[in-house]
Amino acid sequence: MTARYPSPLDHLVARRYALDPSGAVPAIGEETGPAIGEETGPAIGEETGPAIGEENKTETLRSMLDHRSCRSYVDEPVDDEMLDLVLAAAFSTPSKSDLQQCSVIVVDDPVRRGAVAELIPAMPWIAEAARFLIFCGDSRRIRQVAHQHGTPFANDHLDAVLNAAADAAMHLSSFIWAAESVGLGTCPISVIRNHIDEVADIVELPDHVFPFAGMCVGWPKELRRLSPRLPPTVTVHRDRYDDRDAAALVADYDRRRAGDYQPRPDQQVDVERWGAAEFYGWSTEKARMVARRERDQLARFLRDRGFGLE
Amino acid sequence: MTARYPSPLDHLVARRYALDPSGAVPAIGEETGPAIGEETGPAIGEETGPAIGEENKTETLRSMLDHRSCRSYVDEPVDDEMLDLVLAAAFSTPSKSDLQQCSVIVVDDPVRRGAVAELIPAMPWIAEAARFLIFCGDSRRIRQVAHQHGTPFANDHLDAVLNAAADAAMHLSSFIWAAESVGLGTCPISVIRNHIDEVADIVELPDHVFPFAGMCVGWPKELRRLSPRLPPTVTVHRDRYDDRDAAALVADYDRRRAGDYQPRPDQQVDVERWGAAEFYGWSTEKARMVARRERDQLARFLRDRGFGLE
Repeated sequence: MTARYPSPLDHLVARRYALDPSGAVPAIGEETGPAIGEETGPAIGEETGPAIGEENKTETLRSMLDHRSCRSYVDEPVDDEMLDLVLAAAFSTPSKSDLQQCSVIVVDDPVRRGAVAELIPAMPWIAEAARFLIFCGDSRRIRQVAHQHGTPFANDHLDAVLNAAADAAMHLSSFIWAAESVGLGTCPISVIRNHIDEVADIVELPDHVFPFAGMCVGWPKELRRLSPRLPPTVTVHRDRYDDRDAAALVADYDRRRAGDYQPRPDQQVDVERWGAAEFYGWSTEKARMVARRERDQLARFLRDRGFGLE
Repeated sequence: MTARYPSPLDHLVARRYALDPSGAVPAIGEETGPAIGEETGPAIGEETGPAIGEENKTETLRSMLDHRSCRSYVDEPVDDEMLDLVLAAAFSTPSKSDLQQCSVIVVDDPVRRGAVAELIPAMPWIAEAARFLIFCGDSRRIRQVAHQHGTPFANDHLDAVLNAAADAAMHLSSFIWAAESVGLGTCPISVIRNHIDEVADIVELPDHVFPFAGMCVGWPKELRRLSPRLPPTVTVHRDRYDDRDAAALVADYDRRRAGDYQPRPDQQVDVERWGAAEFYGWSTEKARMVARRERDQLARFLRDRGFGLE
């Protein structure tokens, strides 16, 4: 990948894009990998190639390139001090126009947390992780601030919703990087938006605040397989958007990512609707997923909660 | 802040929340601070308190807690190898349902980049930074994938827009953490959405792709002041949303964040409309900012570009 920065990061970049010539990417269906710290690659202190700046400056990149989510946790608490520290790092992310439109609900109450978990029985880790949080887009606070200063809130339109959602998203990803840096495992739960009314009621969100995603956090027992990404030839464009070669590049990615693994027909999404695929890769699965109508209540929910969407 | 993890992070957490008893937070208006690596606090190898796990595991948190944006760069290139590496780390962020709905345009062409910079003359760093990128929400790719597989795209609703925007936001914040970890400075440019039609045309975005934010990146000459955050007593809720004390807590934050600094009346937002504030803090400024109508073209733009918003 890179001529000037070989170091131990090259193989991680290649693996992230499913380009590892050693074929070391676990195939789809091999669900877990070694926990953080158990990897057998060269440790930071053993780098032999030219490092980028100081040696410890590659640690963040290494951790990001090795990111895997975690749905299985050991039975150890994540105490408030640790959670507060990780949240402080997460809240260090830039916020659109410094409006600070993210709020987080830490759901410790077993009744409320159980109620969220019951909505999503396919994800028992919502109940099992040491802690469970809900990241919210919060347009209420800035409207209250405006009201207290006697000034109008003049931006009750779709971009204001997008800004609050973007703040929540940036805090969510920053929380993941902060948590993983101290060895915690995380699993974001965007499916809470499939039950947006119920979740908003469970944690008593007022008007102009909406659930963006849940977050499981705990000390990892097992990590999920690494999720390889589309190559930058598909996702990174030079000067202008150009996807003329995307279909072929996605097909290559499908093959590389699948490797030797193919799910049985009954493991394929909606096989009764679409039949058993001859080759079942990332794009087949995602095409079938977006063919299912879901989460079409967002606009209605936001209007119910006081948002203008024009 | 924390009893069990004092280490060098405590003072950084306190500073992030404008709670530093030493008053070491630069006040509003003091625009720059020392560049990364020039800080005089204890270096990682000099930690004396109990570290969290391995010593180098605090480096990511330290860097995040010390985050400041950068609008002033030295005249050194950021080469493709470095940019590719940082992008690989950024693309390691989780993506909603693994749909991978972020695309990045690296704008090197001086004509196109100049055209973006000309739209926003108040931000000359758009033209000055070593590299300039545009992070986009991309719903086109997954629709193309569905089309190629002969399956319908059944989710042409507002949540699909939010998911693409959220993917762009998570990639954007992840890019910042990756870039800063190797010593680069960054400045996100959300104001490109004030010129969303023009920017989309400059980099030839097709239907179902929208500009989310620009990103300046380069080797820092000077960093901006650290931007202190509302305290977690305002932004982090336990079990249910509760902002009964928020007004008083925001007022305290305003005072702490401002310190001894007050802008002159002519430095206050829209002083001709609102008059000179007796005390001008974060909440006064933000209330005045959201009283200006702006970016109300998003819904129209997205409809023009083929999105359903219901």
